[in-house]
Amino acid sequence: MNTPRPVILPEPTLRRLPWYLAYVETLRDAREEYVSSTRISKDLDLDSSCIAKDLSFLSLKGKTRIGYEVAALEEALTDFLGFHVSHKAYLFGAGSLGSALMQDSGLSNYGLDIIGAFDTDSAKGGLTYGGITVRHPDTLREAMRENPATIAILAVPSNKAQEVADMAIAAGVRAIWNFTPCRVRVPEGVVMANTSIYAHLALIFNRLAEMPSAPEEKGGEI
Amino acid sequence: MNTPRPVILPEPTLRRLPWYLAYVETLRDAREEYVSSTRISKDLDLDSSCIAKDLSFLSLKGKTRIGYEVAALEEALTDFLGFHVSHKAYLFGAGSLGSALMQDSGLSNYGLDIIGAFDTDSAKGGLTYGGITVRHPDTLREAMRENPATIAILAVPSNKAQEVADMAIAAGVRAIWNFTPCRVRVPEGVVMANTSIYAHLALIFNRLAEMPSAPEEKGGEI
Repeated sequence: MNTPRPVILPEPTLRRLPWYLAYVETLRDAREEYVSSTRISKDLDLDSSCIAKDLSFLSLKGKTRIGYEVAALEEALTDFLGFHVSHKAYLFGAGSLGSALMQDSGLSNYGLDIIGAFDTDSAKGGLTYGGITVRHPDTLREAMRENPATIAILAVPSNKAQEVADMAIAAGVRAIWNFTPCRVRVPEGVVMANTSIYAHLALIFNRLAEMPSAPEEKGGEI
Repeated sequence: MNTPRPVILPEPTLRRLPWYLAYVETLRDAREEYVSSTRISKDLDLDSSCIAKDLSFLSLKGKTRIGYEVAALEEALTDFLGFHVSHKAYLFGAGSLGSALMQDSGLSNYGLDIIGAFDTDSAKGGLTYGGITVRHPDTLREAMRENPATIAILAVPSNKAQEVADMAIAAGVRAIWNFTPCRVRVPEGVVMANTSIYAHLALIFNRLAEMPSAPEEKGGEI
């Protein structure tokens, strides 16, 4: 099934593609011109059959004995991952995490353009982070009419997560990026992504606690 | 295999347990005393057999027809997830994400205590975020002797990720929490957790791009 653009890319492949991209960027910075699968396999500690499968999704062929051209591979990965295209997002919750996301210039390099932010706290209304002014959610529908966004980023308190997701979906966003520890339910056809920092903490603590009793385990990559 | 404390908890269960905790906290705030599996199933849109399996890892029994006591369930989940115990961490990279993590009071509520931060940028040395002063990594070994940490949080630029992880492991940390988009390799026995914000972006963009051609898909929860 090596079609250049499958309907839904397998999640493990999608998780690894940004690794290849970050790796290829360091090769580019080191002025390397070509990279072989063997070297990628060694440097990233990934099975070469896994690499061949992952990169087969790109419409890019390596050259026998030379490998992939670094510049072409970087271009193909960035393009394939959607990082070349600007995706507009509204952010909800201008607390410590929310305001940090607004100021993270890395996100726009990866195709995410936060075009506005909302917070119910009137003390935060009018504050500006990274050039983005915080407004009251009452103005969301108007904002969506003037400058529609596809993605809603949830950085609100847990007990507001579902309510804010419902409001954003009703206003027309098609994807929810949930940074709260809550389970958020969305209707069919809406993309849901959880970046649960606390769930990762639980994983780390569990693996650390069990480590002495399971020395044969490889630590367990999460 | 319903032993109260398994050697390694399955990752899907570990991902869901914080959902139950966030949910139970909202019930506690609403002064609810009991919650049934049926209600959890309905409110979180999870299969009841899945809930029964997940909660079987806790040494807690629900009462027939009444369900779980909210306070006891919250206590058992917090305890089981390791959120009651303080886990010390050093943070590397005091950029926008790093400084936001230092200021996120939520982390300490969930058992993560960031006791120090390091950055090679001399302009950042001496700066204080959330009561934590940024130091040069040259002082890491001394810091580990005086106040050892178990976890290293990586919020450094991609091309420094492996080097900083190696340095932290050599200094004695037992877990790496990697916020960079890079693949970081660790020796056996060291816990590795990736919170790759950019990988999640790639997932969202891919699912959004493919949505119109796959209307029968449920959006795809990530």
